[in-house]
Amino acid sequence: LRRCRAAVMTAFGSPLEIVDFPLPEVIQPGAALVKVEMAGVCGTDVHLWKGQLPIQLPVILGHETVGRLVSVGEGLQLDWDGQPLAVGDRVTRNSSRSCGVCHYCRRRLPTRCLERKAYGISYPADAPPYLSGGFAEYIHLQPGTAIFRLPDGLETEQVIGSGCALVTAIHGIERVGIDWGDSVLIQGAGPVGIAALAVALSAGASRVGVIGGPARRLEMARRFGAEMTIDLDAIPDPAVRRDVATEWSGGYGADVVIECTGSPPAVAEGWPLCRDGGRYLVLGHYADAGETPLNPHLITRKELTVYGSWGSEPRHTSAGLKFLRRAAAQFPFQEMVSDRFDLSRANEALRAMESWSARKSVVIPE
Amino acid sequence: LRRCRAAVMTAFGSPLEIVDFPLPEVIQPGAALVKVEMAGVCGTDVHLWKGQLPIQLPVILGHETVGRLVSVGEGLQLDWDGQPLAVGDRVTRNSSRSCGVCHYCRRRLPTRCLERKAYGISYPADAPPYLSGGFAEYIHLQPGTAIFRLPDGLETEQVIGSGCALVTAIHGIERVGIDWGDSVLIQGAGPVGIAALAVALSAGASRVGVIGGPARRLEMARRFGAEMTIDLDAIPDPAVRRDVATEWSGGYGADVVIECTGSPPAVAEGWPLCRDGGRYLVLGHYADAGETPLNPHLITRKELTVYGSWGSEPRHTSAGLKFLRRAAAQFPFQEMVSDRFDLSRANEALRAMESWSARKSVVIPE
Amino acid sequence: LRRCRAAVMTAFGSPLEIVDFPLPEVIQPGAALVKVEMAGVCGTDVHLWKGQLPIQLPVILGHETVGRLVSVGEGLQLDWDGQPLAVGDRVTRNSSRSCGVCHYCRRRLPTRCLERKAYGISYPADAPPYLSGGFAEYIHLQPGTAIFRLPDGLETEQVIGSGCALVTAIHGIERVGIDWGDSVLIQGAGPVGIAALAVALSAGASRVGVIGGPARRLEMARRFGAEMTIDLDAIPDPAVRRDVATEWSGGYGADVVIECTGSPPAVAEGWPLCRDGGRYLVLGHYADAGETPLNPHLITRKELTVYGSWGSEPRHTSAGLKFLRRAAAQFPFQEMVSDRFDLSRANEALRAMESWSARKSVVIPE
Amino acid sequence: LRRCRAAVMTAFGSPLEIVDFPLPEVIQPGAALVKVEMAGVCGTDVHLWKGQLPIQLPVILGHETVGRLVSVGEGLQLDWDGQPLAVGDRVTRNSSRSCGVCHYCRRRLPTRCLERKAYGISYPADAPPYLSGGFAEYIHLQPGTAIFRLPDGLETEQVIGSGCALVTAIHGIERVGIDWGDSVLIQGAGPVGIAALAVALSAGASRVGVIGGPARRLEMARRFGAEMTIDLDAIPDPAVRRDVATEWSGGYGADVVIECTGSPPAVAEGWPLCRDGGRYLVLGHYADAGETPLNPHLITRKELTVYGSWGSEPRHTSAGLKFLRRAAAQFPFQEMVSDRFDLSRANEALRAMESWSARKSVVIPE
Repeated sequence: LRRCRAAVMTAFGSPLEIVDFPLPEVIQPGAALVKVEMAGVCGTDVHLWKGQLPIQLPVILGHETVGRLVSVGEGLQLDWDGQPLAVGDRVTRNSSRSCGVCHYCRRRLPTRCLERKAYGISYPADAPPYLSGGFAEYIHLQPGTAIFRLPDGLETEQVIGSGCALVTAIHGIERVGIDWGDSVLIQGAGPVGIAALAVALSAGASRVGVIGGPARRLEMARRFGAEMTIDLDAIPDPAVRRDVATEWSGGYGADVVIECTGSPPAVAEGWPLCRDGGRYLVLGHYADAGETPLNPHLITRKELTVYGSWGSEPRHTSAGLKFLRRAAAQFPFQEMVSDRFDLSRANEALRAMESWSARKSVVIPE
Repeated sequence: LRRCRAAVMTAFGSPLEIVDFPLPEVIQPGAALVKVEMAGVCGTDVHLWKGQLPIQLPVILGHETVGRLVSVGEGLQLDWDGQPLAVGDRVTRNSSRSCGVCHYCRRRLPTRCLERKAYGISYPADAPPYLSGGFAEYIHLQPGTAIFRLPDGLETEQVIGSGCALVTAIHGIERVGIDWGDSVLIQGAGPVGIAALAVALSAGASRVGVIGGPARRLEMARRFGAEMTIDLDAIPDPAVRRDVATEWSGGYGADVVIECTGSPPAVAEGWPLCRDGGRYLVLGHYADAGETPLNPHLITRKELTVYGSWGSEPRHTSAGLKFLRRAAAQFPFQEMVSDRFDLSRANEALRAMESWSARKSVVIPE
Repeated sequence: LRRCRAAVMTAFGSPLEIVDFPLPEVIQPGAALVKVEMAGVCGTDVHLWKGQLPIQLPVILGHETVGRLVSVGEGLQLDWDGQPLAVGDRVTRNSSRSCGVCHYCRRRLPTRCLERKAYGISYPADAPPYLSGGFAEYIHLQPGTAIFRLPDGLETEQVIGSGCALVTAIHGIERVGIDWGDSVLIQGAGPVGIAALAVALSAGASRVGVIGGPARRLEMARRFGAEMTIDLDAIPDPAVRRDVATEWSGGYGADVVIECTGSPPAVAEGWPLCRDGGRYLVLGHYADAGETPLNPHLITRKELTVYGSWGSEPRHTSAGLKFLRRAAAQFPFQEMVSDRFDLSRANEALRAMESWSARKSVVIPE
Repeated sequence: LRRCRAAVMTAFGSPLEIVDFPLPEVIQPGAALVKVEMAGVCGTDVHLWKGQLPIQLPVILGHETVGRLVSVGEGLQLDWDGQPLAVGDRVTRNSSRSCGVCHYCRRRLPTRCLERKAYGISYPADAPPYLSGGFAEYIHLQPGTAIFRLPDGLETEQVIGSGCALVTAIHGIERVGIDWGDSVLIQGAGPVGIAALAVALSAGASRVGVIGGPARRLEMARRFGAEMTIDLDAIPDPAVRRDVATEWSGGYGADVVIECTGSPPAVAEGWPLCRDGGRYLVLGHYADAGETPLNPHLITRKELTVYGSWGSEPRHTSAGLKFLRRAAAQFPFQEMVSDRFDLSRANEALRAMESWSARKSVVIPE
């Protein structure tokens, strides 16, 4: 029996352990086995590792992967976009599977599917079908997974460098909408903030500013087209930041403000950054970081619209991959990949994201 | 010189004083003088009286009025809807005037006009053009006021009984939208809640529930078509109210929840009452009642959209008056008028609203 | 082997033939066998019979059915709405099945599924799984069919009386949208026009007028709440009809005009009936009735928006069944069923619809 | 008395005549006198000259102008965007004035204002206030005109080179909407087509193709970012053009198709170029070019949405001027200005547009 290694989280906050798993002998119809080439470490992985989301252990983390198809179950002939699939193809996938028949799937809200499961998050490592996370030599994809074949012109680093931050941003910006010529302010300069910046600019925003830190992340934001950045370290007083941001946006506030921090007080800081009649997107709160004092009167008086969006759908992945190809020159997502670790050092990859020392760290199994 | 009386608020929280004013000798082009037949007392008047909004004193309160045109300035020949205007006509008006040329008026947001002024709120009683509030024998309407002639079939009590609550609800529901067949939950059974109930039902909601009190207000809610009511006095525990409301809405939450209470904690109670992907309207927070703990993660996880709306535009008044006529049988707004006071007792009219003892009190100058 | 009878169309325009079919011995997983209680004859059946749609013969017509579950395949435990299903339940279904994985299904347009099939239309009568049309004693439902259990309070005549006209109207009006207070003009007083009238009124229209005929259909329109009707027989001149309609709508045209005739020249008559900035829905052109002279300048000058919608999705059936229950008093769809025929007289049922002599004819197999 | 010259159209199709007019001695409050630096010739001017729009003669043509303020009426202190105005400023303006109080102005549709007037189109040359067209040494702007001060960084050639084509495209694309990543096909490569291309690309389209001619216009389209062009001269058969366009768009049709030709048969060619569920904008039919055979069944079966838009609002001019500045590098509108004529040769300027020999001709009074 062939075997492979995976990095398993057995306890919150403890180092991941390298564990041996048997490779599946038979691939079921519709399923696939993928040899992982690169797995991204996402901010959510850090939240999961800290126990801030209610998941079951043990688990193989890693919900962003690119790899090669090594085995394809019967009937799996086309990728989600209708392209033919064959052993040897380089592929990625949407991280989640929806059931298609529950209350929310029926109502066009598959991201809130009552049976939703995500690779690297929801599948226990010690139960079949095993190998359901990305920090591993192989990942097993169940039937119904939205698989995407990667064309030659699209680098693995682009896909992993944009990661689930990109599809999250695409979904969120679909929700909040960018009108042609909108001014956009982004709170947060991590992967989600950078992705939101790229999507907002390419969706019609006339100008985008970013509030965040540290300095090297803001530098990347400017490289991606931010017209203005406000460094939290340089301007620690939210009132001063607000003055700077409001002046930048012409005195009335931005048309759209996008929260990409995951920090609850950012929302209180963010609502006043909107112009009256503006829109606000809560994009960074995948994890539950608790309550914060907010004033509902602001929503009324400023006639705000506040949007939330959760995860992504396969169509967002499909759109994201096309975007990565056509906008590669303008948005160098491959440069987001700053720190590379082999599988045995998956812990270090996690810590590099936790400490904000990496723009984005990745695991390269071999 | 002819004179008239008005009830003037000279200090927050103090009794209104009856003061004599000279009637204007000449009506300027585009302006009008109206003999007040009935003025409604709105919840906002109570907030103003308590000093919860930043206004200048002295002021003649009263922003809901019906009266007869006694003098019409040159050039004022048509009402806002294009109907001819003549001395003797019974009229009402939108309570606010926008400038038409500021940053927000240019951008189709006249409710956030930078020069916005409201009768009964923003005009000092001791400065020209005087007589700019409704608790008075006469009210002076400046050029550019959106005046509406009332047709014979529409009773003064319908107009005042619905008051600015109706146009506020029309504007808010225009913002949040009601899809055909939506289930709607309303928080609050005061005039705004009742108006929101009527508008939601006539806008395509399949069923509407109301959470509020006291019991006689909920009785009125049922009379207006509420399918289900939850009495705050009977169920003081928000967790139990949530269970009842969620079960009523089929287990997943309501499609739309409308806050009509003005109480900040109602928002924290309200977000979980929405189904995932649902919409929430903050309609009751015209006054600033301060911050409350809220969890942004809920907006993300439930993919909520939260809307605010401020005041109303003349087109909402126009639509509201048509609605009152066509839906009179289904929605007896005239029955909202529960307590009548003459001008000298305007204080008591205010207190009847403050204590929730009246459904709606009105001032009838003579 | 048990057998049953069905009315088969073997040649366009020729009488349907009663043919004997064997009942399936085994019901596959997810499939179901239903004993037909009532099948509606739809205008589309007439078009099909006349050969105006490109279908394969022989076929068992009938895409609107209510019947009893007599056999249920393994795994079919819940209806589309999540209600438990059991042998003996009275059920209906959406007439079409989409594949869920094609280009359009992926893009949330299942009505344009590249593999879409409809009962009573797309399945040849002489090939397995047989019995795929409603003019028969039994109908066989394949896996993936959107089945709906009918609650006791909902009569079979309500479901068949509203038929696919109702779900078609629900889909179309979802597309065109009804804003609160809109005036709506409907062209056509057949089943689709009557259904559009009911949906528009319950979706927030303030007033609805109907242009059509003959007189008894307009009588039904008034019974369903039409404020004004224009009889094509009484006013044969389109220019005069336009004058009457425009005056009714206040001089500027209706906010929304809905074409429910299937006649191309109705579109040329209809565009000018819209107010400037109005919306027009082409709802009646399921069959291809050819080109007609139209002036694109009208779309530009009047700033129209013209919508099309095709068929319906299961969620429209779900919404329609709920609507039938709650609005039964206001919209007596059961009264649409005017002419009943047993299976051997299915031809006469078709002809009663072709000649407009019936509001709606139905086939009751026994 | 000072006098100036203007080119007057006294009869349709006849040469413009140079006529002397007195300059106004007094500028009324809110009005302004502008010395024309450059006036663009628009395709609409050709239609007007040919008598294809119902206007009153004599008229001074020219609705696109840039000039210097030489006299400013009392009270005119700010431009439409709130920037201070002073004699000597270089300005442009929206070509039309709306009344602000009619049925359509009240309903947020000022482009359909019942009293709408356009410079260079609706004002007779022989009646006060005279000088209301752009082919003249001076143009007189009435109170209420939306005037815009041009910043130093914005060249006159950019403003005239984009002309009313740009604001027309901005308005139209606001109507049809561009979703992030949409594929867009444009019919027509004249000024409106080129402007629509620029706006669509900057509004989020992933790729834009253009069908039109002649070759040098398509060259300009590629310079503005068209990914694909189809030359009408090279492919005269619409069926072949459709095959090419459909293949380009991936086999299903484009998400959005924008008609910018003014030719009625283009609409019949255009609808099938949309994917199912796609959107179509009729942008080129400002003039009434008559009926054309169209098939309403296509709208139904393909679930199209067809939009019209008329002229533009001042907010579109405001947005357009900002766009010209920020996107100057990508979209060289100044290069659209190909042929320059002094006032005495205004006829030739018209003919250069009529014959399609010029990309865009302009009149430079001196």
